[in-house]
Amino acid sequence: MATSESPKVGIIMGSQSDWPVMKEAARLLGELGVDYEARIVSAHRTPDRLVSYAKGAKARGLKVIIAGAGGAAHLPGMAASMTPLPVLGVPVQSKTLSGLDSLLSIVQMPRGVPVGTLAIGEAGAVNAGIMAASIVALEDESVAAKLDAYRQSQTDGVGETPEG
Amino acid sequence: MATSESPKVGIIMGSQSDWPVMKEAARLLGELGVDYEARIVSAHRTPDRLVSYAKGAKARGLKVIIAGAGGAAHLPGMAASMTPLPVLGVPVQSKTLSGLDSLLSIVQMPRGVPVGTLAIGEAGAVNAGIMAASIVALEDESVAAKLDAYRQSQTDGVGETPEG
Amino acid sequence: MATSESPKVGIIMGSQSDWPVMKEAARLLGELGVDYEARIVSAHRTPDRLVSYAKGAKARGLKVIIAGAGGAAHLPGMAASMTPLPVLGVPVQSKTLSGLDSLLSIVQMPRGVPVGTLAIGEAGAVNAGIMAASIVALEDESVAAKLDAYRQSQTDGVGETPEG
Amino acid sequence: MATSESPKVGIIMGSQSDWPVMKEAARLLGELGVDYEARIVSAHRTPDRLVSYAKGAKARGLKVIIAGAGGAAHLPGMAASMTPLPVLGVPVQSKTLSGLDSLLSIVQMPRGVPVGTLAIGEAGAVNAGIMAASIVALEDESVAAKLDAYRQSQTDGVGETPEG
Amino acid sequence: MATSESPKVGIIMGSQSDWPVMKEAARLLGELGVDYEARIVSAHRTPDRLVSYAKGAKARGLKVIIAGAGGAAHLPGMAASMTPLPVLGVPVQSKTLSGLDSLLSIVQMPRGVPVGTLAIGEAGAVNAGIMAASIVALEDESVAAKLDAYRQSQTDGVGETPEG
Amino acid sequence: MATSESPKVGIIMGSQSDWPVMKEAARLLGELGVDYEARIVSAHRTPDRLVSYAKGAKARGLKVIIAGAGGAAHLPGMAASMTPLPVLGVPVQSKTLSGLDSLLSIVQMPRGVPVGTLAIGEAGAVNAGIMAASIVALEDESVAAKLDAYRQSQTDGVGETPEG
Amino acid sequence: MATSESPKVGIIMGSQSDWPVMKEAARLLGELGVDYEARIVSAHRTPDRLVSYAKGAKARGLKVIIAGAGGAAHLPGMAASMTPLPVLGVPVQSKTLSGLDSLLSIVQMPRGVPVGTLAIGEAGAVNAGIMAASIVALEDESVAAKLDAYRQSQTDGVGETPEG
Amino acid sequence: MATSESPKVGIIMGSQSDWPVMKEAARLLGELGVDYEARIVSAHRTPDRLVSYAKGAKARGLKVIIAGAGGAAHLPGMAASMTPLPVLGVPVQSKTLSGLDSLLSIVQMPRGVPVGTLAIGEAGAVNAGIMAASIVALEDESVAAKLDAYRQSQTDGVGETPEG
Repeated sequence: MATSESPKVGIIMGSQSDWPVMKEAARLLGELGVDYEARIVSAHRTPDRLVSYAKGAKARGLKVIIAGAGGAAHLPGMAASMTPLPVLGVPVQSKTLSGLDSLLSIVQMPRGVPVGTLAIGEAGAVNAGIMAASIVALEDESVAAKLDAYRQSQTDGVGETPEG
Repeated sequence: MATSESPKVGIIMGSQSDWPVMKEAARLLGELGVDYEARIVSAHRTPDRLVSYAKGAKARGLKVIIAGAGGAAHLPGMAASMTPLPVLGVPVQSKTLSGLDSLLSIVQMPRGVPVGTLAIGEAGAVNAGIMAASIVALEDESVAAKLDAYRQSQTDGVGETPEG
Repeated sequence: MATSESPKVGIIMGSQSDWPVMKEAARLLGELGVDYEARIVSAHRTPDRLVSYAKGAKARGLKVIIAGAGGAAHLPGMAASMTPLPVLGVPVQSKTLSGLDSLLSIVQMPRGVPVGTLAIGEAGAVNAGIMAASIVALEDESVAAKLDAYRQSQTDGVGETPEG
Repeated sequence: MATSESPKVGIIMGSQSDWPVMKEAARLLGELGVDYEARIVSAHRTPDRLVSYAKGAKARGLKVIIAGAGGAAHLPGMAASMTPLPVLGVPVQSKTLSGLDSLLSIVQMPRGVPVGTLAIGEAGAVNAGIMAASIVALEDESVAAKLDAYRQSQTDGVGETPEG
Repeated sequence: MATSESPKVGIIMGSQSDWPVMKEAARLLGELGVDYEARIVSAHRTPDRLVSYAKGAKARGLKVIIAGAGGAAHLPGMAASMTPLPVLGVPVQSKTLSGLDSLLSIVQMPRGVPVGTLAIGEAGAVNAGIMAASIVALEDESVAAKLDAYRQSQTDGVGETPEG
Repeated sequence: MATSESPKVGIIMGSQSDWPVMKEAARLLGELGVDYEARIVSAHRTPDRLVSYAKGAKARGLKVIIAGAGGAAHLPGMAASMTPLPVLGVPVQSKTLSGLDSLLSIVQMPRGVPVGTLAIGEAGAVNAGIMAASIVALEDESVAAKLDAYRQSQTDGVGETPEG
Repeated sequence: MATSESPKVGIIMGSQSDWPVMKEAARLLGELGVDYEARIVSAHRTPDRLVSYAKGAKARGLKVIIAGAGGAAHLPGMAASMTPLPVLGVPVQSKTLSGLDSLLSIVQMPRGVPVGTLAIGEAGAVNAGIMAASIVALEDESVAAKLDAYRQSQTDGVGETPEG
Repeated sequence: MATSESPKVGIIMGSQSDWPVMKEAARLLGELGVDYEARIVSAHRTPDRLVSYAKGAKARGLKVIIAGAGGAAHLPGMAASMTPLPVLGVPVQSKTLSGLDSLLSIVQMPRGVPVGTLAIGEAGAVNAGIMAASIVALEDESVAAKLDAYRQSQTDGVGETPEG
């Protein structure tokens, strides 16, 4: 999946194994016409990369960071501690506790350092993409129009009566 | 607490009883120089008000909606279903289940309709204010500067050694 | 599965994907001789449809609404906010949290707007059908008789000693 | 609190200690003009009383049973096993587990025997009263009118802006 | 699996579907030389059978009742309410909540009516069999000897070093 | 509270701080005419005392052991590993997790070593006393009679209508 | 509470408000004769201080780091990502979720970066001090002797029979 | 998997069935050049073996004990009660409750007897191996060098961009 050279949204994740979930965020951003980049940044295994990514994000022109991680998920909160940009967190479903650990590790941030947290798993990744687009859309008419169309299409896609 | 006439952020809550928590969001927005309004909009007792508030929010110039509710907390998600604006959710601590019900009711949105969820209770309200400001700051240098200063001041406020 | 033209019970669900669970409610109503209709009404993707369905339900002659949804399940509670009819809620099992999120999102309604909540998943859908029938049966001898027979048959169907 | 001689709704509870919660159901029924009775019926300490109460409920003219209990709360489900009437369950907040045990013990009924479960604690008791009234109102215009008025008054009671 | 004509232990379960779990209790009792019977007694679908079973248990010579059920599991507690015999409860794993609902429904009995609760699922059924035998063994040297041998054999069966 | 010289039931607990809960078990045993002893035996701080207590229990004439502990509660299970006597476990309410940790640490024993677990806290201690008495009563008519009277008195003590 | 100039153990915590809990670790280290230092290092508000503290810890002669934090508790895991020293984590009890969020955020570390986690709250802080001492004691006879004495004294401090 | 004759780390587990998880700890110790032994020691089925293993561990030259167990997991805590050595606990995933019971049974130790607890399942076993090595490395340059190399290699192993 190609990523942009002048991205507005940075998608980061703790491990390659998070990508099957996180690429849903990428897919939505692509669909909504928002330039993005996707990077593996492990809070625990590559803390230096995390520091430089988060501290440099705003200067490189990013508007929003989407961070996904599972278990004791520290990536979204640590990124938020080192950038003034809005950070969205995606709790990746964990093997043993179904992502409840991921969710609490991301959402329960102390006062002063927010992470806007989405649902556990793929639905959360999709929604992180949409929410990032809704932020970009505040100053980008083209994205706003695509977002409206996307929202309309999902309304239109709901059938009247159940089948089967 | 005075609210602005040309607000950028709309703070809504399900009940007067949520205000002691939600006014922390208002306080932060005031501190960061972001115009806001605060309204009581009950998803369950005033569904019509919710429809008109959410549908009219963008046209009235709002950029972000912060919605707080407790228990079976439907306000943030229902607002998100009727506006393309980014919606931030604050799970208000519930009487019996400590806000775990509020949290899950807000964060576990299905794909297509995101709510960026903050921590349960006052910390979440503070952080909703900061996150809304960080979105506004993307296109407002003055707010961005105030946000940087706030972040610096909270860094500076951390003592070196514990006392007592 | 055919639905009636003068239904007494309206079965609504957030998505086609809820139908494999919710059709158990339909099956029971059919078995107990209660006319019903089944509709997809997404609180989040089709909020306008929800408003018109819920507000019009009583005038169209419905006696009970059964609403099923999963995750941050807002459909039952939002329907209840817009109709004086009794609303029964079925928490559909969610992918990550086994329906605990669905359950809490439905059952923990604030004072003033009740949703009578059944068990998570298929058992809950079956029971929503039975309970709706028990309400209809209060004024319909034929349904009451069928309900009595159903209850007797399930008593009779319990073997004396386990086999295998 | 006086109770009616020809009650439509029977409120039962496992212990005198549940009354501070359950009397909220009684209060609502009184306010909505529904005749009711209130009885202590312990599933565990007075199982015979439970059998005779539940089996005799329909013949005595009751339309709905509201049952409240805490901890391993068996009263609502056992009542439902012995009457074809609709049974509403109120999970009373327990000392150690905040009513999560009460909730699961009531709501997770197996297929065949439904209990329409309300929220934990006082809010659930209030809502059980309202829901019972909504069932009675299906065939009682006077109760229906009072229910409409109650719903309107709670809508009207929501202020516009938070105070304090 | 044959059951005795003068049983010391009664194994009851809510449904045929509980037998694959509960037969582990039967297997252990057989192995430890304790006469038992196994019956399906549904608290919800056959409440009359429950009443007669529990009330008659002591007179028929039973010493212990083992009761297994899942979800809103009322069988063990209701049996305990109608017999002075010791009652052991086995929480059968439920489909959606992994037996946490079964466990809390069984163990959280109010003061006055005890159920000695074992682990969720097969391990609990095995242990209910062993514990029932340990009660019978108090006055039966033969069972006591078999129980000692069983305990010794499981000690002997623990290897020194892991393999594989 | 005096304890007997030829006890039938041994009450052990991990710490003096468990006594306010565990003395409820003692009180019931006293009321039901069962000789008992009460000892502090810490699995973690006095493991040798635990070994000698559990291994010597049967030879000293005990029939049942009641063990109470909180948090990572190992006392009941470790006692059960070293005696063939039936062991009842009381999860003492813990400071942070309300006794859910105590409950799971006690009830989830692996196959082969049962602990009959009662409710969290005082209700569980009361019920451990009753259940131990019900085991002793199997061969002691006097205790059986007192148990019947106790059960009758608690039935008689349930009022008809709630007051207040 | 004075801290040493050549500390073996570094106690860090996210905020001054964690000190009432974390000073229990300090107290134990003092009692066991282990030199320590105590510092406030906020993962979220002072990420640079965290980097320099963790990266410099080994070179400064520290042997063990004890890190305490609450809510979305990232301090222990992030410290562990930047030092080869053993890191012990203390989940500080959180306001809304009783420290369950703190516990899961600390203990559920991904493979490769361990945090040895102790109990929630003060007991955990005490035990972190003891465990750090047990590590230091591996090569320090004096500390080992004090640890033995401490362990003996707590065994001796357990009374025989409960009082009161 | 061969084990050393002069082991520094003792890996114990409650059952052969824990070995597929616990051998990850062994694998890591092997990789980091730390001599270890692996033994099956069941707290419940072989309590005597547990006593002699734990009491003899230090005299035999062990520096650290790693103990893994599932469900009501008493092995780590009981080992810690009988040795001054640092004890690391690995909660093995349980069949019904996903290891939440194992985790709480291990981590919630009372003050005075610490167990440094790692994550549930294989990740926890890997990390127990690493943490034990980090303790051994405090006085063993060769292990310290291997640990540094291991940490560097896992940093190097994190790709830049996700693939697939």
